[in-house]
Amino acid sequence: GTAPAIVHAQANLRWRLTSSFPKALDTLFGVNDIFAAKVKELTGGKFVITTHAPGELVPAFGVVDAIQAGTVEMANTAPYYFFGKDETFALGCAIPFGLNSRQMTAWAYEGNGLKLMRDFYRQYNIINFPMGNTGAQMGGWFRKPIASLADFKGLKFRVGGFAGKVVERIGGVPQNIPGGEIYQALEKGTIDAAEWVGPYDDQKLGFYKVAQNYAYPGWWEGGPQLDLYVNTKAYDGLSAEYKAVIECAAAYAHTDMQAKYDGKNAAALKTLVAGGAKLFPFPKDLMDAAFKESMALYSDISAKNPNWKKVYEDYSKFRAEQNLWFRFTEATFDDFMQRQKL
Amino acid sequence: GTAPAIVHAQANLRWRLTSSFPKALDTLFGVNDIFAAKVKELTGGKFVITTHAPGELVPAFGVVDAIQAGTVEMANTAPYYFFGKDETFALGCAIPFGLNSRQMTAWAYEGNGLKLMRDFYRQYNIINFPMGNTGAQMGGWFRKPIASLADFKGLKFRVGGFAGKVVERIGGVPQNIPGGEIYQALEKGTIDAAEWVGPYDDQKLGFYKVAQNYAYPGWWEGGPQLDLYVNTKAYDGLSAEYKAVIECAAAYAHTDMQAKYDGKNAAALKTLVAGGAKLFPFPKDLMDAAFKESMALYSDISAKNPNWKKVYEDYSKFRAEQNLWFRFTEATFDDFMQRQKL
Repeated sequence: GTAPAIVHAQANLRWRLTSSFPKALDTLFGVNDIFAAKVKELTGGKFVITTHAPGELVPAFGVVDAIQAGTVEMANTAPYYFFGKDETFALGCAIPFGLNSRQMTAWAYEGNGLKLMRDFYRQYNIINFPMGNTGAQMGGWFRKPIASLADFKGLKFRVGGFAGKVVERIGGVPQNIPGGEIYQALEKGTIDAAEWVGPYDDQKLGFYKVAQNYAYPGWWEGGPQLDLYVNTKAYDGLSAEYKAVIECAAAYAHTDMQAKYDGKNAAALKTLVAGGAKLFPFPKDLMDAAFKESMALYSDISAKNPNWKKVYEDYSKFRAEQNLWFRFTEATFDDFMQRQKL
Repeated sequence: GTAPAIVHAQANLRWRLTSSFPKALDTLFGVNDIFAAKVKELTGGKFVITTHAPGELVPAFGVVDAIQAGTVEMANTAPYYFFGKDETFALGCAIPFGLNSRQMTAWAYEGNGLKLMRDFYRQYNIINFPMGNTGAQMGGWFRKPIASLADFKGLKFRVGGFAGKVVERIGGVPQNIPGGEIYQALEKGTIDAAEWVGPYDDQKLGFYKVAQNYAYPGWWEGGPQLDLYVNTKAYDGLSAEYKAVIECAAAYAHTDMQAKYDGKNAAALKTLVAGGAKLFPFPKDLMDAAFKESMALYSDISAKNPNWKKVYEDYSKFRAEQNLWFRFTEATFDDFMQRQKL
């Protein structure tokens, strides 16, 4: 092939980054401004990236097409939104009963995760960089508490894309409703329950005012990772220096987002409980059924989708080893601390 | 004051980084090579940092003095080694029953941790950057299993600096022995037990051959953070661009080290157990006594050391909020996953 024209190390460069999240979310959208600021600092103001909310350049769910076509150089998104193109997208973000936040980062940086996902993304002209994680999400807001799996049957539950497949298999009725319309649907009773993210983001949308039963854990999102997508042709044209700038600025933003969620969720949870939110764990029979159906779903997909099969084999082996290790010193340390009066 | 002479953005620069860890530890020493490689890439080879093991420039525990005097520009260390200068050093690294790995990063990035530690470090001419975490460490290797606090009385236990204060308060006899001499002391029975890090590093030193009882959790190191120290005068002389280079390369190395430990510990644990290691949890009465004595110790230090008091007040408030939040969705998600056959 022909070598791309390399942008010189110190060239002035102006790129655009489109996000799948609205600017009001200072966590999910804010990560892009953190990233762009670091890129600017690292290059003495020469590499400028403007950040854009959905609709400014492309719609929220048009970011993969835009990067693939090269109409925008960069995007930040939750890859599982695109499971309709190929279920493998979800493995780079979150699947029900998947890796937690630290394990996702370990799979990317130390395991084969980044390598395998980059192999997969090549067909979409995408090179990806881990850039953000919310940590384990909450299980959503329910108009009535859920005491057993039976209470979940027929329940109209607003839930993000891929998880809906499992919700359906355990008898729920997944609903696809944009963030801005959830509150009203919950208030009117058009839906019975809705999940969004966790205390900090959920508080902004005010769900606790209309559905006070707040479930945990969000078993379909144990550590969803956001990715920075870069169009491969644009990326290949960068100097080695600018490539490193993208990698390290993304690493900074990746760490910063998880830190923000950890800090802000802790404070927001107190406010929500003071405002009337009632925390409850999902019942054991529901968790067990959801786990069983998730594993069955992954077998079904493996039988049909070779991309998924290749990545999931590595992912599930890594998950087994991680959970074996984490159950000893990490879990017992955390468990002891959580039982203390601090 | 006089403004320092600023190094121009693209100047060639050659700095030295001294570590408190030997090169054989590809995790603890290796983080410095990862950092230096990223700095080099980010600057197109203009900013070169050479990395040095203890003894090459200064001894392992001479790094703070070297940075303070400005004889070396950079160091990487576990700050708790320097609690003898001021107990506050330990708060930037690990204290018994302190923050876990994610919480340490959240305290630094999102809480007041980095700001407070930088205020403290100013008197030592140090500016610090989080650069590495081992995750929760194991509780060490015991010649005989420990069934209750009574078994711990009079026990000669090789344990890192600050934790020895609590070990002593619960009846143990802390021993200060360099890493290279632990194996022989354990084999001969000069000591009864020794802690080092976790499966991956411990495997290299072969302790399982002479003391097979492997305790968890390492309650004195729930998430020890390593720091990059930079001499403030050298740092102040850098361009804004090179300052950002240090920050972002350190952030990359910070994330990379935890990922390495998570990945490598999981694999090493299996090997150790296959080699005869017998895992056991510290008994509840020992954990409870150690927790109680730790809190008493922190009160004692707060009464005498205003530096500690200022930082610990913020640290302990953050710890209480984090543990309140983590016990819900993070802990129940992890706990469920750890109980599954994966």
